[in-house]
Amino acid sequence: MKNFDINEDPHRRYNPLINEWVLVSPHRSKRPWQGQNETVTSDALPEYDPTCYLCPGNVRANGEVNPAYENAFVFENDFAALKQEEIAFEENKNETFFKAQPERGISRVVCFSPKHNLTLPEMPVVAIENIIQTWQKEYTDLGTVDYINHVQIFENKGSVMGCSNPHPHGQIWAQSSLPTEVEKTQNNLKAYYDKHQSNLLQDYLKEELKLNERIVSENDHFVALVPFWAIWPYETIIISKRHFGKITDFTEAETTAFATILKQLTTKYDNLFETSFPYSSGIHQSPTDGESHPEWQFHMHFYPPLLRSATVKKFMVGYEMMGESQRDITPEKSATVLKEQSDVHYKSKI
Amino acid sequence: MKNFDINEDPHRRYNPLINEWVLVSPHRSKRPWQGQNETVTSDALPEYDPTCYLCPGNVRANGEVNPAYENAFVFENDFAALKQEEIAFEENKNETFFKAQPERGISRVVCFSPKHNLTLPEMPVVAIENIIQTWQKEYTDLGTVDYINHVQIFENKGSVMGCSNPHPHGQIWAQSSLPTEVEKTQNNLKAYYDKHQSNLLQDYLKEELKLNERIVSENDHFVALVPFWAIWPYETIIISKRHFGKITDFTEAETTAFATILKQLTTKYDNLFETSFPYSSGIHQSPTDGESHPEWQFHMHFYPPLLRSATVKKFMVGYEMMGESQRDITPEKSATVLKEQSDVHYKSKI
Ligand SMILES: O=P(O)(O)O[C@H]1O[C@H](CO)[C@@H](O)[C@H](O)[C@H]1O
Ligand SMILES: O=P(O)(O)O[C@H]1O[C@H](CO)[C@@H](O)[C@H](O)[C@H]1O
Repeated sequence: MKNFDINEDPHRRYNPLINEWVLVSPHRSKRPWQGQNETVTSDALPEYDPTCYLCPGNVRANGEVNPAYENAFVFENDFAALKQEEIAFEENKNETFFKAQPERGISRVVCFSPKHNLTLPEMPVVAIENIIQTWQKEYTDLGTVDYINHVQIFENKGSVMGCSNPHPHGQIWAQSSLPTEVEKTQNNLKAYYDKHQSNLLQDYLKEELKLNERIVSENDHFVALVPFWAIWPYETIIISKRHFGKITDFTEAETTAFATILKQLTTKYDNLFETSFPYSSGIHQSPTDGESHPEWQFHMHFYPPLLRSATVKKFMVGYEMMGESQRDITPEKSATVLKEQSDVHYKSKI
Repeated sequence: MKNFDINEDPHRRYNPLINEWVLVSPHRSKRPWQGQNETVTSDALPEYDPTCYLCPGNVRANGEVNPAYENAFVFENDFAALKQEEIAFEENKNETFFKAQPERGISRVVCFSPKHNLTLPEMPVVAIENIIQTWQKEYTDLGTVDYINHVQIFENKGSVMGCSNPHPHGQIWAQSSLPTEVEKTQNNLKAYYDKHQSNLLQDYLKEELKLNERIVSENDHFVALVPFWAIWPYETIIISKRHFGKITDFTEAETTAFATILKQLTTKYDNLFETSFPYSSGIHQSPTDGESHPEWQFHMHFYPPLLRSATVKKFMVGYEMMGESQRDITPEKSATVLKEQSDVHYKSKI
């Protein structure tokens, strides 16, 4: 009988953060593709677009005028999925099939730059530091609202990720409940902490640094790597080397280091297929429920859909929706390919 | 304080099948859309396409020639994500961070019809019965392979769902482990069964039939409805009225009734935006591990991505990936809209 070769044989890998598995089919990466091709949006965007509702000085859907902002700029989402209004509600604890509860929250949009055509990898580190400081301020401001227990910072980049405006921006949805994925993560972090009196991701990071097989980028304070259990072809996670729970715990040096690794990682992404690399990213950190949460560890996920080229993405569909996530290229291979990419953005070389 | 109105106020709903929540934002359905539009594939496909690797008589990638089949036709997937080969492997039970195990399985493709341009809603009921009988045969054949414990039957329809060939077909991935989503479902079905000595979906269906707010289609043996906890805009579930665990438990009348409701539901889908409605669908049923599984109930999920038109889909991206699934239109509204659609296919009227 053939011995198990993780680089060649179909296998499942376990994700201890959310207690789920992923099916890995390394041999399948040579599958020809005759399906849908994504459109690559032309790179030639203007620095200012008079029709963009995020550009400085322009009017938004609700009639408000954006200020002539020069750094990151935050405003309330005009079509928020959450509302601040308090709603009277009597919970029926016995309900199994029709369990529902009102959800209060605040959604904000964070413009990363006044320039319509500038994305994270193309910004100077100092401008990315300004975005991080904005996230810190929002985490604090939103987190101290009495009914807000969780602040989700995220970015959808690229039309293939449902982003309807190329102007560089992210979002923050803050709400009273812990969202499903965060609750799953917290449960697993907590179980690990209770058992080992240490942090799951800190212990994991130590092993990853020893093995050095999935590391993409590293500096004094942060590591970007392809997790052993990654589901997306070029999925990565950024973990801080020091154990802390939230973005407001950053030292000044950590702010710079985080800005630097964000720039490096997104530059490598863009260089991979010489395209503005689409992804959804998001920060997972301590809830703002007033508890201490020693089990939490600040980290950031990047879920990019592209698989083989700027136009061919991975589809998480039938089997993945009914069964479990499936990937072709191994995380080790993806990490190697990403690591090899230059830290200089391909456009700056032209 | 305003009283909670489930038709208007942001809220979360609980899915007891997988123990997860969905965020519902009914007020948000008026949000304008400036993002990506999907391409609608022209309806004018030929009945036979000489370049299609699924058409009768054509040569596939591996050199094999498809027979001149007249009903449903099954073959081994040429680029299978799973392999049948047995792999020697020593499990390390203490591993937390790098847990992996080889996975054996068989992937098959099920062509629904020899006609390249015929989809489920356009087929006569008797042809759909033939597909069901094919699924039954495959469930039995694959399920009795000694190392196969789960048989996942599914369909990806439409290029937006990663389907690379419009020739009507589905797939079957059979494997030794229970995939993540199936295991979650089984755990919740089992907990409910242990507590109530009855089946979760049977009890749920009884309540839904009483309320009659989310029913889309019904006949003597099956009901298609939009679940209270649906995440996709027009997500539906088909549940059998009788309690049984697997497709091979169908009576003859149930086979006809299931074919009929499949035709009705997919016809309503196509009629909604007068387009060949994309979706991923899949059957959840008893594992084939030799146990009796009284907790299981045969059911079929439909996850269609379209939201507002044939070209605007819902994106499950940043917030959804980091937090939890989010929907704008309420399940009640979706069910009403679907129910109103004619059972006669729009193309047959032309
Ligand atoms: O097997 P196919 O149809 O080539 O591929 C499609 O379905 C598979 C199973 O859901 C997915 O893993 C692929 O990403 C998708 O493109
Ligand atoms: O808020 P946006 O950018 O208009 O919308 C985008 O992000 C949201 C949050 O992930 C999603 O719910 C939407 O489906 C997506 O199109």
